Amino acid sequence: MTTYAYDFSFGDKDQKDLLGGKGANLAEMTKLGLPVPPGFTITTEACRHYLSTGEPPAELSEQVRERLSALETAMGRRLGAAEDPLLVSVRSGAKFSMPGMMDTVLNVGLCDATVEGLAQQSGDSRFAWDSYRRLVQMFAKTVLGLPGDVFEEAIDDAKERAGVSADVDLDTDALRDLVKRFKELITTHTGHDFPQDPHEQLWQTIEAVFRSWNSERAVLYRRTERIPDELGTAVNIVGMVFGNLGSDSGTGVAFTRDPATGRRGAYGDYLANAQGEDVVAGIRNTIPLHRLGETDPNAYNALLRAMDTLESHYRDLCDIEFTIERGKLWMLQTRVGKRTAAAAFTIAAALCEEGVISADEALTRVSGEQLSRLMFPTFDAPEDATPVATGVPAAPGAAVGVAVFDSRRAVERAAAGDAVVLVRRETNPDDLPGMIAAQGILTSRGGKTSHAAVVARGMGTTCVCGADELTVGADSMRTSDGTVINEGDVISVDGDTGAVYVGEVPVKPSPVVSYFETGEVGEDDALVHAVDVIMRRADGARRLAVRANADTGEDAARARRFGATGIGLCRTEHMFLGDRRQLVERLVLATSDEDRDAVLGELLVLQRDDFVEILSAMDGYPVTIRLLDPPLHEFLPSLVDISVKAVTEPSEQTEELLAAVRRMHEQNPMLGLRGVRLGLMIPGLYRMQVRAIAQAAARLRADGGDPRPEIMVPLVAAARELAIVREWTKSILDEEGIDAPVGTMIEVPRAAMTAAEIAEHADFFSFGTNDLTQMSWAFSRDDVEGSFFSEYLELGVFPVSPFAELDTSGVGRLVAIASDEGRERRPELHLGVCGEHGGDPHSIRFFHETGLDYVSCSPFRVPVARLSAGQAVVERSDSDTR
Amino acid sequence: MTTYAYDFSFGDKDQKDLLGGKGANLAEMTKLGLPVPPGFTITTEACRHYLSTGEPPAELSEQVRERLSALETAMGRRLGAAEDPLLVSVRSGAKFSMPGMMDTVLNVGLCDATVEGLAQQSGDSRFAWDSYRRLVQMFAKTVLGLPGDVFEEAIDDAKERAGVSADVDLDTDALRDLVKRFKELITTHTGHDFPQDPHEQLWQTIEAVFRSWNSERAVLYRRTERIPDELGTAVNIVGMVFGNLGSDSGTGVAFTRDPATGRRGAYGDYLANAQGEDVVAGIRNTIPLHRLGETDPNAYNALLRAMDTLESHYRDLCDIEFTIERGKLWMLQTRVGKRTAAAAFTIAAALCEEGVISADEALTRVSGEQLSRLMFPTFDAPEDATPVATGVPAAPGAAVGVAVFDSRRAVERAAAGDAVVLVRRETNPDDLPGMIAAQGILTSRGGKTSHAAVVARGMGTTCVCGADELTVGADSMRTSDGTVINEGDVISVDGDTGAVYVGEVPVKPSPVVSYFETGEVGEDDALVHAVDVIMRRADGARRLAVRANADTGEDAARARRFGATGIGLCRTEHMFLGDRRQLVERLVLATSDEDRDAVLGELLVLQRDDFVEILSAMDGYPVTIRLLDPPLHEFLPSLVDISVKAVTEPSEQTEELLAAVRRMHEQNPMLGLRGVRLGLMIPGLYRMQVRAIAQAAARLRADGGDPRPEIMVPLVAAARELAIVREWTKSILDEEGIDAPVGTMIEVPRAAMTAAEIAEHADFFSFGTNDLTQMSWAFSRDDVEGSFFSEYLELGVFPVSPFAELDTSGVGRLVAIASDEGRERRPELHLGVCGEHGGDPHSIRFFHETGLDYVSCSPFRVPVARLSAGQAVVERSDSDTR
Repeated sequence: MTTYAYDFSFGDKDQKDLLGGKGANLAEMTKLGLPVPPGFTITTEACRHYLSTGEPPAELSEQVRERLSALETAMGRRLGAAEDPLLVSVRSGAKFSMPGMMDTVLNVGLCDATVEGLAQQSGDSRFAWDSYRRLVQMFAKTVLGLPGDVFEEAIDDAKERAGVSADVDLDTDALRDLVKRFKELITTHTGHDFPQDPHEQLWQTIEAVFRSWNSERAVLYRRTERIPDELGTAVNIVGMVFGNLGSDSGTGVAFTRDPATGRRGAYGDYLANAQGEDVVAGIRNTIPLHRLGETDPNAYNALLRAMDTLESHYRDLCDIEFTIERGKLWMLQTRVGKRTAAAAFTIAAALCEEGVISADEALTRVSGEQLSRLMFPTFDAPEDATPVATGVPAAPGAAVGVAVFDSRRAVERAAAGDAVVLVRRETNPDDLPGMIAAQGILTSRGGKTSHAAVVARGMGTTCVCGADELTVGADSMRTSDGTVINEGDVISVDGDTGAVYVGEVPVKPSPVVSYFETGEVGEDDALVHAVDVIMRRADGARRLAVRANADTGEDAARARRFGATGIGLCRTEHMFLGDRRQLVERLVLATSDEDRDAVLGELLVLQRDDFVEILSAMDGYPVTIRLLDPPLHEFLPSLVDISVKAVTEPSEQTEELLAAVRRMHEQNPMLGLRGVRLGLMIPGLYRMQVRAIAQAAARLRADGGDPRPEIMVPLVAAARELAIVREWTKSILDEEGIDAPVGTMIEVPRAAMTAAEIAEHADFFSFGTNDLTQMSWAFSRDDVEGSFFSEYLELGVFPVSPFAELDTSGVGRLVAIASDEGRERRPELHLGVCGEHGGDPHSIRFFHETGLDYVSCSPFRVPVARLSAGQAVVERSDSDTR
Repeated sequence: MTTYAYDFSFGDKDQKDLLGGKGANLAEMTKLGLPVPPGFTITTEACRHYLSTGEPPAELSEQVRERLSALETAMGRRLGAAEDPLLVSVRSGAKFSMPGMMDTVLNVGLCDATVEGLAQQSGDSRFAWDSYRRLVQMFAKTVLGLPGDVFEEAIDDAKERAGVSADVDLDTDALRDLVKRFKELITTHTGHDFPQDPHEQLWQTIEAVFRSWNSERAVLYRRTERIPDELGTAVNIVGMVFGNLGSDSGTGVAFTRDPATGRRGAYGDYLANAQGEDVVAGIRNTIPLHRLGETDPNAYNALLRAMDTLESHYRDLCDIEFTIERGKLWMLQTRVGKRTAAAAFTIAAALCEEGVISADEALTRVSGEQLSRLMFPTFDAPEDATPVATGVPAAPGAAVGVAVFDSRRAVERAAAGDAVVLVRRETNPDDLPGMIAAQGILTSRGGKTSHAAVVARGMGTTCVCGADELTVGADSMRTSDGTVINEGDVISVDGDTGAVYVGEVPVKPSPVVSYFETGEVGEDDALVHAVDVIMRRADGARRLAVRANADTGEDAARARRFGATGIGLCRTEHMFLGDRRQLVERLVLATSDEDRDAVLGELLVLQRDDFVEILSAMDGYPVTIRLLDPPLHEFLPSLVDISVKAVTEPSEQTEELLAAVRRMHEQNPMLGLRGVRLGLMIPGLYRMQVRAIAQAAARLRADGGDPRPEIMVPLVAAARELAIVREWTKSILDEEGIDAPVGTMIEVPRAAMTAAEIAEHADFFSFGTNDLTQMSWAFSRDDVEGSFFSEYLELGVFPVSPFAELDTSGVGRLVAIASDEGRERRPELHLGVCGEHGGDPHSIRFFHETGLDYVSCSPFRVPVARLSAGQAVVERSDSDTR
């Protein structure tokens, strides 16, 4: 027979799958001998059974009866006993902490028949009726789903009638009336009476917890956090202890280290004579935890001992909920505590240096996302700076600029040189130009999957969403305290915390970045020291090399400082812009081979210098140079602009250019004459580039350098395309006396499907996962990310943009097929990735598992990639890194 | 030890791989006891050895000596013997007949030492010196690669000196001088003397044949005909027999049936006192074969007997080369003869009805390409109509129209209502607009892979390329007889034969089409009767169902007549054009849900009628309706047009439209907001369409019909997209009381990669191989077919446009993966294809092998698809259908 309900004395912290996080940790604390109130856990398996069949498992009712009976024995009281009733709390607890689910119902067991028994038991009649009032109110709201405000109104009425202003001033009679009123409200709203049978209360609550797993908010939360829908939640039934039984009682939260900085010590807050919900309601101010030591040293010392026990047992920062009932400490919950990015590094490194955890484990205690957050500049807000609003931190960074409320105006002001923060109620595709022009984006509506959030993350622009204390209008906004902010007023937006400030908040550079830049660890800087410890381990562990995508010597040098050991993608198209646009125009308009050759000759000289610069900045390391990829018409004016110009300022030159642009115009340039196709149609172009690379390498070699160019052909779809270009390339390299690997991007689905054949002509494959994603999904990133990705995230088509994180089941499968089949045909084939996914922590794990040799990403992401590549090695495959 | 040289008495017709086509058939004729001159064949294996190592196999020289010695014994003469020399011909012969390779060198064995021996042997001194002259000339040109014109000039000089005008009037002395002159030319041009050792002549010739396998023309031919490069050619060494030994000698070609119509009988041509090359040179006129019966009944009857033997042995039309030497028949070559499309059908059906071959074999004797050619209208040229030029028939059909020599003018004249034939020396992407506007395309340069040919085939426009007798100028062209054709003159262009006529040639409809339309077989029409016989067998054999792509009731009815059993793709976008464009504009510009719903309401009524029409035309058969696919901005004016209009004719309305167009503009619309994405973003649109389908079906059912709609969702890339639309769809169908399968296009690579997951929500998959090709190759057909496909065919990147024939190793592999994995997850999954490949014979074989249930193609291709689907079943997998 399956066991669906376990006493706390069974189970342990590793049974989160079955008992949920809360239940597993209660069991663990019980096992450790800590003062946990008696109780038991109904398993997630029971929940899954309920959700799939609509009924609890048949065995559950008998098992709950048995466990409850044990609980009654332990507490010495019986549920529903009129004289000395047992009360219990019912608390949900899934594997992963999850807002949106029903949380807690306290005081289950109180009813008309038992309330006086509680009054006698506690010697406090007002306490008993207040507890009953709380039960009925919570039950109505969370179990029966009644709107909360009708109960708030009833309380306000009662206070008015009693002529008092605070809840706590309502006396026993007023509370008795309130309970009566609440029960009537339930009957009116639901057609059923509040259940007087405590067992009935218990069962209704248990089922409500089960059902809340599928509440809309819970489903949405799981989708954005990628928590599987099929886990289900556990339910914990715990004997009630009371923090509101007088001044020697109270409730609090505690942390074994500072969750903001990671410093050791006992941190937390305490509220005397209160239950947990009172802390949340913020009726009275909490006191810092250490003050409890002054008022109740016994309980405080017991708590400190419990905290020590927990931290050395969990070997990590623990956060704790506790209650003191008439001087006696009760532990209600613990878990490995959430923390800031800085604390995560500091704690992991400290625990490692304290010998509590190994260096490998320390490495798994931090995340690439945390490191990346530490690399953004942050606000250095003065002590008294208070945000006027706080929203969802949707894309990190610190943005300061003039508030602008309209996309077109944002473009205008940005063009005029202003730093702009675009403020909108919510954004839509029409706002894209303004979003692109802005330093930061602020909306009063929407969450992490809103249009603004999706687009901002895609562009790397700081964004705060859903700051709903702000009322945003067409040309101004109002804060909740009535301040009006007009266009042109400076505001500051914190993409890490969601805080919005009026005025300019000073920004300070990241100490972590300066550590990466210089390699120096200041004596006193615990954070930088911690990052250093962790990065050393990551570099020691990783198998993947990390290269950078860099197009200039400057970028290459920066990438080297950040730890890149090569360039995985040097794009050459940027080298055709600026002054050289003129040359490209001449190339395109050339009508004879002589004209064309003349232009190519000029370009050769310029390109050679480009390559000398970048190869010498990466001396001794591979530099993968991609031959020209974009269609040539991208270097010409747009068809719309030149068509309009031909009408407004007609001239022969414009006509000629219009004709060329029209001839070269493409419906879908991404699927047009670009990449290797361009190379094959204008052979002189690639030959010029290869010669420039070869001559640059030859020059550096002559000067004693160690240039290591690798030549990469873009957009290959068929083996023969590569074979032809490879043949040209090899013969030019021979002429120049240089040897260099020749390889290809794998960025077109057909290339992945025919990788074995292509491998015959390639020394390396570099997966262009941006284009591979675009072609596999039939998505043009420019067109779709701003137009429907937000909707797609909401609809759950994907949990995260496939441009941000590799879609392993579709695009990743193509990568895996091409890797396997390419290597099978040519075992020495070198494999890398140079799409943006090369800097994404989750994607890097996939690339590690797929057996690639390196990842390449923007210089700024190099440290994150190094970290993630190390983690991919040390993580046990069954570990849970969420 | 490997045998590299086989006597004709070994081997048979099935050894083409080893002996080449010519050698295998010579061996077969020898085995049949037909009078073949003695000889032997050097194998393709020897050639492959030579090509890979640069040397003939070591054993070859000894083996050739042995075979030659046997040949000498059989002929009773010795190579190089001064008194009675043996002469041989050396002829190439690959597995597939292949222009571009060296063909034949006759009279090998003649030299200064043997020429007089031949004179004595033949009793004809002039014959001997003429034979020597021919050898030296052929050897110089084909073995040594000297330019032919220097020899022609020397002959002209000799004739001038002798005061004669024809080669045959040169006497022995003149020929002796010519031989001397030729030998001097060789020495001058090559620095080596003409080899006087007959064995040296033989070996040089053999190696030249080997090398000619890799001549530029041969390589190009193989590429376009998709003949593998690694086959190599065989070499046949045959004892010389002479057709030029007087009036009782001669040479000819014969066919066992008429290769034009397929009628039984002896057809062919004969030329007395001549060698084969004289026939080709056309110096004298040949006589019809049957006249040989009058002049030499013995030889003629021997030939007729040989023809009978061959036809009953080969069970097919044979073509034969023969020589009569002083009254004695010699068979020099035979093969299964080439024939017209009409003859192919007529012969296959006749042989079947004669009991010579089975119905299955008859089915394999024709091709889908032949059937498709028979379905085009053809010219009904009067007897005296002679083409002014003949080019390469590059895209079939019969085009009549005014000649226009400029793309822009072609567009103008077509817009003015003229039928236009665009004439260009060669075309390039700038000519695209004119090519689209034209009924036919004619060029004086380029072959089957030229830009004009590739684009014309892609568009289905009649095209003749490379008609090099025409001199095409900027606004007129001149024929070889000096006729000038100006813009506006009517010309007629035959895409089946390559013929170009001045003036209007009457066009007659295809009798095969009228057979398909009516099902009637006229008593006297052998062709239609034959087509009927073959089609019945194809329909009896095939496993694949054939559906049609049809968007209107009219198309659907036509498709039914052509044998389609359902519609595999009914596009709904055409239903949004014409008058209804106004509604789409209103839909796009709608600013409120009410406005949008109002438009959708109007569209619902119209769409319902659309679906009633098409469902009733296909009553009882499935009709797969694809929900709207193209981006909505396709229904609006282009951004360029409206931008220019906003400048030239500004108005508020234009501004509003411009704003909308700008907002909806996409960089790459093919990868933008279309297909299911559009459906998910404007849910009312798909819901309206589904409701219209359901109501149409309900109405027809109420009237006693049997409508069978199937609802197809386009551009699905992720299972969840389909799941959402399916849920809506099923609930609307339920409301309307209709049940219908709901499935999806598989047209995006990711859909193929995740087909198992998608299959959970799909009743059927229909492979959209057009888009799948576009996405897999990253090709936008509109952009690339006209810009670089021609170059890609030349470069051998692909042997045929992947839009014309499924690229099985890339795109086909995706189809196979999706089919297998979809079926594995959902065994009852119905599978079809609705891209244009559904009507392509080669692709259909692949779809059959992949296990699809049906193919769907344009109504006109339905008979071809039926035929190919039948062939796919009966062809043995090892059969060679080239």
